[in-house]
Amino acid sequence: MVHPFLFIAPTASMGRGVYTSEDIAAGTVIEISPVVVMSAEERKLLDQTALHDYIFEWGDDSTQCCMAMGYVPVYNHSYKSNCEYVMDYPNQQISVTTVRDIKKGEELLINYNGDWDDETQLWFNAE
Amino acid sequence: MVHPFLFIAPTASMGRGVYTSEDIAAGTVIEISPVVVMSAEERKLLDQTALHDYIFEWGDDSTQCCMAMGYVPVYNHSYKSNCEYVMDYPNQQISVTTVRDIKKGEELLINYNGDWDDETQLWFNAE
Repeated sequence: MVHPFLFIAPTASMGRGVYTSEDIAAGTVIEISPVVVMSAEERKLLDQTALHDYIFEWGDDSTQCCMAMGYVPVYNHSYKSNCEYVMDYPNQQISVTTVRDIKKGEELLINYNGDWDDETQLWFNAE
Repeated sequence: MVHPFLFIAPTASMGRGVYTSEDIAAGTVIEISPVVVMSAEERKLLDQTALHDYIFEWGDDSTQCCMAMGYVPVYNHSYKSNCEYVMDYPNQQISVTTVRDIKKGEELLINYNGDWDDETQLWFNAE
């Protein structure tokens, strides 16, 4: 399920991003997408490819990884993001929910650290 | 762009698949999704992971590969598919178009060989 208001477009500096063509209220689930779960061994291989920047850690001990379908891999990062993602391990899917009201035309951002306001430094320079 | 009528659900025998909640006319573009393009070297690494079954060959000489966003990696295969995908190399995206009228509730299928009716044997047993 990808919310029909979402669309992908170029950003000023971060390649492509996810935007909304309509206002969205806080607390709205905007996407629920399946993932392909992979082992720690597969993760080592993926980390040597461009997908390093797209996969998510997976599993209770975070040693596995996953590649998500839908728009999940396209959301850019913010240390004060307007959306948050939740991993559903048993059902192998990731959902994305707005954490505040969002205006038409805004870019939808997640915090790659997990919580929307977690300022832990990432592996690349980000705002 | 993912057509709002599309949804992902379990199939009888092929894991997850893409379905439509409304009738769709022949010749409708149901999805245009960006891809992450990778080199022949990266492809060798990906072929050792579960993503082997999800990546697409890419580029005029087909030595590169890509991982697509959206629902593109979720469509199952048929040797007589009801949709066809087109790769747009310059814009790094894949579009999916219906090749016949499709009824509400039908699974949307692509032919992993490219053309909707190409019966070349795949790397796995398929119908």
